[in-house]
Amino acid sequence: MLAWVDGQPADSVSLRDRGLAYGDGLFETIAVRDGQMPLLERHLQRAASGAARLRMPLDVDALRAELLAFAGQLGSGVLKLLLTRGDGLRGYAAPQQPPRRILTGNPPSAWPAQHRAQGVRLYPCQTRLARQPLLAGLKHLNRLEQVLARSEWADAACAEGLMRDSEGLVIEGVFSNLFLIRDGELLTPALTHCGVAGVMRAEILSRAAAAGLRCRELEVSHEQLLAADEVFLCNSLYGIWPVVALEDWHWPVGPVTRQLQGLLADLLDD
Amino acid sequence: MLAWVDGQPADSVSLRDRGLAYGDGLFETIAVRDGQMPLLERHLQRAASGAARLRMPLDVDALRAELLAFAGQLGSGVLKLLLTRGDGLRGYAAPQQPPRRILTGNPPSAWPAQHRAQGVRLYPCQTRLARQPLLAGLKHLNRLEQVLARSEWADAACAEGLMRDSEGLVIEGVFSNLFLIRDGELLTPALTHCGVAGVMRAEILSRAAAAGLRCRELEVSHEQLLAADEVFLCNSLYGIWPVVALEDWHWPVGPVTRQLQGLLADLLDD
Repeated sequence: MLAWVDGQPADSVSLRDRGLAYGDGLFETIAVRDGQMPLLERHLQRAASGAARLRMPLDVDALRAELLAFAGQLGSGVLKLLLTRGDGLRGYAAPQQPPRRILTGNPPSAWPAQHRAQGVRLYPCQTRLARQPLLAGLKHLNRLEQVLARSEWADAACAEGLMRDSEGLVIEGVFSNLFLIRDGELLTPALTHCGVAGVMRAEILSRAAAAGLRCRELEVSHEQLLAADEVFLCNSLYGIWPVVALEDWHWPVGPVTRQLQGLLADLLDD
Repeated sequence: MLAWVDGQPADSVSLRDRGLAYGDGLFETIAVRDGQMPLLERHLQRAASGAARLRMPLDVDALRAELLAFAGQLGSGVLKLLLTRGDGLRGYAAPQQPPRRILTGNPPSAWPAQHRAQGVRLYPCQTRLARQPLLAGLKHLNRLEQVLARSEWADAACAEGLMRDSEGLVIEGVFSNLFLIRDGELLTPALTHCGVAGVMRAEILSRAAAAGLRCRELEVSHEQLLAADEVFLCNSLYGIWPVVALEDWHWPVGPVTRQLQGLLADLLDD
């Protein structure tokens, strides 16, 4: 496995690492194709924003250079970046130090091609996302809610799970963001209270607006989800999967979803 | 540093560890004095309960033996135990495997003796605990809320911070549980929605009941906290600290707090 810790080849990390002790850090999973990372700037932007909110001093230019060098060695696959607060003594008080950079290279994701072509079924997760505005939007390392949600189903017929928050609002998938189309408008849940602000979500909002689509972030109830004309999931690795079913409910794979898949084609394999 | 991973001396852990990736695991900090751990059975009980709730198959008898062997080598200090879900591939789906055991030895905690004798001032943390009943009570590795709360103050005049939940209820300290005395009754916040069910909290409830005190777990409002006759904090390392101030509010160090400190004397140093 190709792996660097703070720029040096390594396969392990100190037992004092605060990422391990407290989940005190952030991560990014970045698609790499022929050494290129099409969404690199969005990943860097999110990492910088997260580091600022967690008060970790991050040198973004040095990180960019390191990611480019690593991606060049990886070739094609998935680069996983962790930024932890480095080593600490026992206790929650945070040392003032630049984050530790942990980069690992992984093989390309192997989701079935028909997810993108024919759409997926959502599992209705019972695990609810807690509302924590201080952490909302961040791709941080406290991910037990996602672990619990993903453990709820083993049936491969469901490619993803639907996560709602403690008030019942629809938020996202376990490892995806969610979009709805209603009356030609592109809608996605606001991530004010919880959820991860995905880079593909941001890219889709940007390209859709550029293509003339009306776009809006808002609170989405379960009823609004069911009433949508089209529903789709996205993340930075697979792009867009149409959603065709949730329990007994069905949606068609609609024209706006297909249009957006087309708009993203340059970012993705095959 | 004395440290074992899965029973072997080690100073690092695999970059694939799910504790690092997701905070997917639990921890215990255990006081060790002359190789003895007075609250060992409570720590084991909590770890077993947490492992069951996170669906990690834990061999408690083997863990007990390992902790005893480690404590014997440590002598006196603080044994920190992490139980992570071990190595994983990328993705939230949890492998079915026994947890990885990470044991580190730390020097005894060095809090000022006057905290116990004269009491402490609480800092009023703005960071609120999110309500997540699926994780409430667990000493899990998702601790960003505590990291953020502890970062709110640097003034050594405040030895601990008061944490409330998203609804404003009083829950606990950043690294302590909280008790109130009102009309001779011992009260502590219920941990149904959030908070860590501390082993010293359990020990105090048990010893207080055995000593004839009325005890109750309940929802505690900020007003109820201010109206208490006595307030104290506890954890497994320092025992009991009376609370004497929160902003402009003051409490005396009262007789029930002193009685309970006396009841715990056999568990603690000096």
